[in-house]
Amino acid sequence: MINQLIINKLLSLLEEDIYPEDVTSKIVSGKKCKAVIISKDEGILAGQKFIIPFLEYLNVKVNRYIEDGKEIKKKDIILEVEGDAETILGVERLTLNLLGKLSGIATTTNFMTKIAKQYNPNVKIAGTRKTTPGLRIFEKYAIEVGGGDPHRFNLSDAVLIKDNHLALIGRVREAVLLAKKVTSFTKKIEVEVTSYEQAIEACRAGADAILLDNMKPDEIIPIVKELKGKILIEASGGITPENVADYAKTQVDIISSGYITHSSRSLDLSLDIVK
Amino acid sequence: MINQLIINKLLSLLEEDIYPEDVTSKIVSGKKCKAVIISKDEGILAGQKFIIPFLEYLNVKVNRYIEDGKEIKKKDIILEVEGDAETILGVERLTLNLLGKLSGIATTTNFMTKIAKQYNPNVKIAGTRKTTPGLRIFEKYAIEVGGGDPHRFNLSDAVLIKDNHLALIGRVREAVLLAKKVTSFTKKIEVEVTSYEQAIEACRAGADAILLDNMKPDEIIPIVKELKGKILIEASGGITPENVADYAKTQVDIISSGYITHSSRSLDLSLDIVK
Amino acid sequence: MINQLIINKLLSLLEEDIYPEDVTSKIVSGKKCKAVIISKDEGILAGQKFIIPFLEYLNVKVNRYIEDGKEIKKKDIILEVEGDAETILGVERLTLNLLGKLSGIATTTNFMTKIAKQYNPNVKIAGTRKTTPGLRIFEKYAIEVGGGDPHRFNLSDAVLIKDNHLALIGRVREAVLLAKKVTSFTKKIEVEVTSYEQAIEACRAGADAILLDNMKPDEIIPIVKELKGKILIEASGGITPENVADYAKTQVDIISSGYITHSSRSLDLSLDIVK
Amino acid sequence: MINQLIINKLLSLLEEDIYPEDVTSKIVSGKKCKAVIISKDEGILAGQKFIIPFLEYLNVKVNRYIEDGKEIKKKDIILEVEGDAETILGVERLTLNLLGKLSGIATTTNFMTKIAKQYNPNVKIAGTRKTTPGLRIFEKYAIEVGGGDPHRFNLSDAVLIKDNHLALIGRVREAVLLAKKVTSFTKKIEVEVTSYEQAIEACRAGADAILLDNMKPDEIIPIVKELKGKILIEASGGITPENVADYAKTQVDIISSGYITHSSRSLDLSLDIVK
Amino acid sequence: MINQLIINKLLSLLEEDIYPEDVTSKIVSGKKCKAVIISKDEGILAGQKFIIPFLEYLNVKVNRYIEDGKEIKKKDIILEVEGDAETILGVERLTLNLLGKLSGIATTTNFMTKIAKQYNPNVKIAGTRKTTPGLRIFEKYAIEVGGGDPHRFNLSDAVLIKDNHLALIGRVREAVLLAKKVTSFTKKIEVEVTSYEQAIEACRAGADAILLDNMKPDEIIPIVKELKGKILIEASGGITPENVADYAKTQVDIISSGYITHSSRSLDLSLDIVK
Amino acid sequence: MINQLIINKLLSLLEEDIYPEDVTSKIVSGKKCKAVIISKDEGILAGQKFIIPFLEYLNVKVNRYIEDGKEIKKKDIILEVEGDAETILGVERLTLNLLGKLSGIATTTNFMTKIAKQYNPNVKIAGTRKTTPGLRIFEKYAIEVGGGDPHRFNLSDAVLIKDNHLALIGRVREAVLLAKKVTSFTKKIEVEVTSYEQAIEACRAGADAILLDNMKPDEIIPIVKELKGKILIEASGGITPENVADYAKTQVDIISSGYITHSSRSLDLSLDIVK
Repeated sequence: MINQLIINKLLSLLEEDIYPEDVTSKIVSGKKCKAVIISKDEGILAGQKFIIPFLEYLNVKVNRYIEDGKEIKKKDIILEVEGDAETILGVERLTLNLLGKLSGIATTTNFMTKIAKQYNPNVKIAGTRKTTPGLRIFEKYAIEVGGGDPHRFNLSDAVLIKDNHLALIGRVREAVLLAKKVTSFTKKIEVEVTSYEQAIEACRAGADAILLDNMKPDEIIPIVKELKGKILIEASGGITPENVADYAKTQVDIISSGYITHSSRSLDLSLDIVK
Repeated sequence: MINQLIINKLLSLLEEDIYPEDVTSKIVSGKKCKAVIISKDEGILAGQKFIIPFLEYLNVKVNRYIEDGKEIKKKDIILEVEGDAETILGVERLTLNLLGKLSGIATTTNFMTKIAKQYNPNVKIAGTRKTTPGLRIFEKYAIEVGGGDPHRFNLSDAVLIKDNHLALIGRVREAVLLAKKVTSFTKKIEVEVTSYEQAIEACRAGADAILLDNMKPDEIIPIVKELKGKILIEASGGITPENVADYAKTQVDIISSGYITHSSRSLDLSLDIVK
Repeated sequence: MINQLIINKLLSLLEEDIYPEDVTSKIVSGKKCKAVIISKDEGILAGQKFIIPFLEYLNVKVNRYIEDGKEIKKKDIILEVEGDAETILGVERLTLNLLGKLSGIATTTNFMTKIAKQYNPNVKIAGTRKTTPGLRIFEKYAIEVGGGDPHRFNLSDAVLIKDNHLALIGRVREAVLLAKKVTSFTKKIEVEVTSYEQAIEACRAGADAILLDNMKPDEIIPIVKELKGKILIEASGGITPENVADYAKTQVDIISSGYITHSSRSLDLSLDIVK
Repeated sequence: MINQLIINKLLSLLEEDIYPEDVTSKIVSGKKCKAVIISKDEGILAGQKFIIPFLEYLNVKVNRYIEDGKEIKKKDIILEVEGDAETILGVERLTLNLLGKLSGIATTTNFMTKIAKQYNPNVKIAGTRKTTPGLRIFEKYAIEVGGGDPHRFNLSDAVLIKDNHLALIGRVREAVLLAKKVTSFTKKIEVEVTSYEQAIEACRAGADAILLDNMKPDEIIPIVKELKGKILIEASGGITPENVADYAKTQVDIISSGYITHSSRSLDLSLDIVK
Repeated sequence: MINQLIINKLLSLLEEDIYPEDVTSKIVSGKKCKAVIISKDEGILAGQKFIIPFLEYLNVKVNRYIEDGKEIKKKDIILEVEGDAETILGVERLTLNLLGKLSGIATTTNFMTKIAKQYNPNVKIAGTRKTTPGLRIFEKYAIEVGGGDPHRFNLSDAVLIKDNHLALIGRVREAVLLAKKVTSFTKKIEVEVTSYEQAIEACRAGADAILLDNMKPDEIIPIVKELKGKILIEASGGITPENVADYAKTQVDIISSGYITHSSRSLDLSLDIVK
Repeated sequence: MINQLIINKLLSLLEEDIYPEDVTSKIVSGKKCKAVIISKDEGILAGQKFIIPFLEYLNVKVNRYIEDGKEIKKKDIILEVEGDAETILGVERLTLNLLGKLSGIATTTNFMTKIAKQYNPNVKIAGTRKTTPGLRIFEKYAIEVGGGDPHRFNLSDAVLIKDNHLALIGRVREAVLLAKKVTSFTKKIEVEVTSYEQAIEACRAGADAILLDNMKPDEIIPIVKELKGKILIEASGGITPENVADYAKTQVDIISSGYITHSSRSLDLSLDIVK
C-alpha cells in the first residue's frame, strides 16, 4: 500500500477529533514530550502500518518496539513517540482508537483461525462486508494481519449472487449464466446457496465458488463430500469463536464471519507521557 | 442537524462499498423492487435520521414503520423501500451496517441508563471520545437516542485536563488556573483526578467538573459526599453494564463509558426483497 | 451504477472548463434556449448514461433520441436539450468532449469485435489499464457499450503477474504460488507470459488465466492448442483493427487492446441552438 | 506552476488505478528495485514537469535523462527511478499513460508547427477546449512544450463569441458591443465568423480577434488581405497535419486545432526493471 | 454562473459555522417558522444570486422582495423565508455575513463610481486581487453588481507585469516583449509603471494597458494626455472614496481600488422570526 | 494547532488566486529571488503561525523577524523569504491579504482591550460569529493574538439562546430549562436578554451567562449590580472603539463586538524583492 494515499484519510479522521482546535492543549503549548503506547491487554497487534507514517507526517519521531502481527501482552511497550506535546496529545485518541480496533480484529481473526486449523489445516477464516463504514481499508488489512482472508474488498471485485438477486432473477443456473455473460472474465463468480440442490446447480452452471448461507454443519457435510475440489466452498452466517470448530470440521475451504469485524472487542491501549 | 451536510459523508461511505461499480448488480440492471428492512434482534432503533434522507436522495421511496428511539423486536419491519433494484442492493450493506451499529450503541446506552437510574434517578450515562474514527457524528447521536449524554464532541468544545496534561504542567490548581486564563469563557473546564485531594483542589481552583478516573466506588463516595452540588462529578474508567449499578449508587452526576461505543454489539438487521 | 456517485465527478470536470465563470455567457444572461446535439460522424453512441442525469441535475430538460449502444449516422439528432442558455452553453463542451470520446471508444471496440468474431465467435475484445487518467470509469463503460470486456478495473480487482514482477520474483511457478498464498480466494490470478514454456508452467501452477504478451499469432497457436479450455488465454500487445483478425484466428479466449482506449478517434458531434 | 497544487490531482489519478490496493504487488512486498522508462517511439517529450515531483513525493528517487521539449528516439532512456518496488509498480501505469499522452500532444503540435512555419514563419499553432475532461492543465502544458499556443484555458479567460451566441443575440456588431459593455477590460474579445462580411463587422465593432470558423483557405485569403495587422486572425475547424500547410499559406496569425489534443497518438513508453 | 457549482462551496461555509451541530437548535427541534431578513442599513444589495438557490437547496422556501443591484433602505424587507426552524436558524449567520459583506462591497463600488462618473463619464471603478481569501468569486460579483469592473479574476487571466517582475527582468520593454513571446495571444498584457518614461516605453513595446502605480493625479495627467486612446490607462494605489474624484478628473480609463474589497463596511442586516 | 490540518485549506486559498497558473510568472520562470515583507502600517502582527509553515511547505525558506502578537511599525521587516521566484510571486497576494487582514483584527482587538481595561481591568473583549465566511479559524486566532476572547467557535460549542429562539419557545426560564435537559453537561448555557427582568430570570433558571443584547450602559448597570459574580455578564451589540469605554465602565465581565472582525481595517503590508 502506498502511504501517501492513506495520509489524507487519516488527516480527516484526526480533524474529526480536533477541529477546529484542541482547547485543552493551549495549556501545554510549546512544550515537547516523550511518551509510550502501552498495552493493557493481550492479543495480536495491527495498525502500525498506517499509524507510524502518519505520526511521522505530523513530525512526531517514532520508535517501534513491536511489529504488526506479533503478540502483545499486558504492559508491553508498542511504540515510543517524541515531539511537540500539543501534536502528541492531539493525535493520541485517534491512534489508540485505531490501533485498539484493528488489533482487536486481528486478535479475533487469529484466534478463530487457530481453532479452525486444528480441524482443517487448509481452511481460511475470511472477512465479509460487515465492516465499519469508512474503515474498510483498515479492517481488511487487520484481517490479513490476523492470518485471515479479506474476501471481496467491496461490490466491485468479484461477483457474489445473493438471495436478493435470486429473488429477482429466478434460479441459480440462470443467474450464474447471466453473470458470466455480463461481467468481465477477470471476476470470479460466487453464489449464495441454501440447499444441497442449489449447490450442485451452481457448480454445474460454472460458478467459481459457493457460499453456504446459514447452513448447519450437518447440512454442509454432504455438499463438501460432493463438491470439494470442484468448486470453492465457503460457509457463512452466524459463525463465532464458539462454533467455528464445528464449521471447520466440515472441511469447507473458507469460513467467513462478520463477527470478526463487527463484534471483535477493541484492545485496551494507553499513551503515557514519560518525559 | 441539517441533512444536506450529511449526504456527502454518506456518499463517500457508499463509494467505499461500491466503487467503481457493483458488478453483481449488472444481472438485475433495470429491474425495480420493493424490500423491507427487518430486525432479527431486539433493542433500540437508531440511525434512520441519517439513512432515510440518504435513501430519498438516491431516489429510493421510503416508508418508515418505526422511529428512532423506539424498541424493536425480532421480525419487526423497520423500513420499507421501493425503487431501482441496483440502487437498493447497492446501498443495502451500508444501510444495515450503519443502522445495526448505531442501534447497538443506543441499545447499550439505554440499558445502562435504566440500570443506573434505579439507584440514582438523575444520573446521566455519557459517551467518551472512544468512538469509531470517522463515525463520531453518528455515534454521538446514537448515544442521545439511547437516553445518554454525548459528552464532548471532540477536543474543541470543552476543556478536559487529563493525567498527561498534569504530567506536563504539574499540579491540578496550576493547570485549572492556566486553562481559565488561556481559553474562552464559553468553555467549561473539567479535570481528571485520581484522589480525594485532587478532587478538592480542582473544585477550589474553580473547575466546572471533575472526572474521577478509574476510581473505585468506595473511593468515589467520600468525594461525592464532600463536593456534590458544588461541582459536577463524573465517574469514568472501565464502566460496563455489569458494574454500572455500583457507580450509580455513589450518586455521581455523570457516568461515562467508552464501552457503549467501542464494545456495543451491532444489532442484526436484514434487507429482504418482497417484490 | 448509481448516478449520484458520478455527479460530483462531472461537476469537477465542468468546473475545469468554466471556473470561475463563462465570461462570454454574460451576453446571453437570462435567455432560455432549445438546442440539439447532432452527429457529424458515424459510429456507436456511448456516454448518455452519465450525461443525461448530469444535464438534468443542472436543470436542463433532456429529450433522448438515440440510446447508448445504438449506431449513429451523420446528421442524426442524439439529444434535444432545453433550458437556461448560460447553462447549456456552459456545459456544451464537456458534453461533446465526453460523448465524442466515449462514443469513439465504443465504436472502435465494436468494430474490432465484429472483425474478430468472424473468425472466433466466442472471443472477447477487452480493454486494458491504458485509459485516460481520471476517466477510467467512463472509458470502461464505453468498452462494454461497444460489446467488449472491460478487463480489470484497476490494480485491485484481479492479480496480473507481469514481466516486472517476474524480474523481481524469479520463475512463473514461484510467483503464482506466492500470489495464491498472499491474496484473497476471491481474486483470479493471471500471468503475463512470453513463451510456450511459461504458458505451460503458469497453467500447471494453477493460474486462472495467461496473458500472451506481444507474442505473434504463430507463436500463440501451439499454446492455444495445448491449453484451450484448461485456462483462459488472452492475447495482448500491439493489437489494432488492422491485425485483430490474425489474433482472432488463433482462437484465444480474449484479445485485449490498449488501442481502443488510447487511440480511438473521438466522434465529431456538435450542439446547435434551434430556438 | 507550483508543484504542490498538482500533487493532490495526481494522487487522485493514482488512486483511480490502485484503490484500495494493488493486489499483485503483495508478491513483491518489501523489495527495492531500480527501473528505467524507455521510449519505444519517436517524438517530443512532455510531462516530466508533473511526473518527477510526484514520484519524488512518493519517495521514489528519480534521475532524469531527457528534458521536456527534447526529441526522444526509440530505446532512449527518459528517466531512471529507484525505490520501493510496490510503489514503482503501482505508479508505473499512471506515469506511462500521462507521459505517453502528453508527449503525443507535444509531438503533433511540434510537427504541425514546423510545417506551418515553412509557409508562415510567425504563425502559431494553438489548442482549443477540445481537451480530455480532467486533463486540461496537463494538455495545455503539452501544447506549449510542443511550441504551440495554449489558447484560452477555459471559458473564463477571454471572450469568444460563437455561432450559438450569435443565434441568441443577433448580429456580430451587437454581440461585440454587448461583450465590451458587460465584461472586464482585462479580457480580449474574439468572435467566430463565417464570412468576409462578418469579419469586417467584427473588426469595425472593436473585437480583438476573429476566428474564421470552418472557412476554406481561399475564403480566408481575402479576409487576411483586408484585416491583417488590424485584428488577430485565427483559422479553425478541421485542421490536421495533412492540411495545415494550406492554412499556413493564407498568412493567418493563428491556426487552432482540436486535432492536437483529441486525436494525437500517445507515444509508446515502457518501464523496465533493471535491478 | 451555474448554481450547482456554488452549492458545495456554500455548504462548506455553512459547515464552518455549524459542524458538528447547532446545540442550541435542539430546543426548537421539529418546529417550523417564517422569518424576514431586514435591512438596518442603507446601500446596494448584493448576494441573493448565491444565497437564494442555497436556501432553496436546504428546503427553505424563499420569497424575494428586493433584487441584487437595487437600493435598500433601513427597515426594508429583503427576503422572506419559511421552513424548518433548525435550518433557518442554522443558516442565519452565514446568510447575513455574506449578504452584509457583499452588499457593503457593492455599495462602496457604486458610491465611488457615481463620484467618478461626474468628472469622467466613461471611467470604470475596478477591483483588485485584494479580496478576502476564499471569497473572490463572491466579491468580484459584488463589484459588478455595484457597477464596477471586476478586473483580473486571478493570476491566470491576464498578464500584469509588476514592480517585482521588473526587479527580476530589467526594463519594461524587455518584460513586455518576453510576455508577448511566452504567453497566449488570448491574454491582454498590462504593465505596472511609475513614471512617464515607463508609460511611454510600455506603450511602444505593445502592451495593451498600463497601471499607473501610486502616481499622483498631477503625474498622471501628462501620461493621459500623451497616451489616451493608444493604450488603456489604469490608475491604482491608495484610491478611496475621499480621493477618487481627483483621479477621475485625470481622465484615466480605469481606476482600481483595493479599498472596495478590503475596507468596505458590511451592511447591517438581521433575520427576525415573524411566526 | 496542528499545521498539517491547515495546509490543505491554505492550498485551496492559493488555488483561488492562481488556478490554473500565473501567466505573468512565465517571464520569471526558473529564477530565484529573495524578498522581504515590510509593514507600511502600524499595529499588532498576526498570522505568521499559519503562513510560515505554509511557505515552508512550498519550499520557500523563511526568516522571521517579528513574532505574532508583537507591535509592528512602518518600514519594519516582518519576514524574509527566499526561493523560486514563481512561487514567491504566486503566493505573495495570499500572504499579504491574510497577514494584513488578521493583523488588522489583532490590532483592533488589542486597541479596544487596552481602552476597556483602563476602566475594568478584568474585562475581556470577545469576538462573535460575525467573521468572514471561510476564515473563522484564522480570525478567531487573530482575536486571541490581540488579547481577546474568541467566544464560541461556532454553533456547536456552547448554547446561546437568542431572541429568535425565544420567539419560538416562549419565556427565558422555559428555554433555559429545556436547554439544560437536551444538551450535554459539557456545554455552557448563555441567554440573550434585553431587560433587567429577563436577566434575573435567566440567572434563576440556572444559565451560566447572559448576553445583554443592544442594551445601553445605563440599562446594564443595575443588572451588573444585581448579578455580578452570580453569572457571567456579557454586553454586546454595536460596540466599537468609540463607545467601548462606556461599556467597560459598567463592569460587565465580557464585551463582545462584531466590529473587530467585520470592520477592522486590514494592515497595509508589501512584499519587495531585494535580490
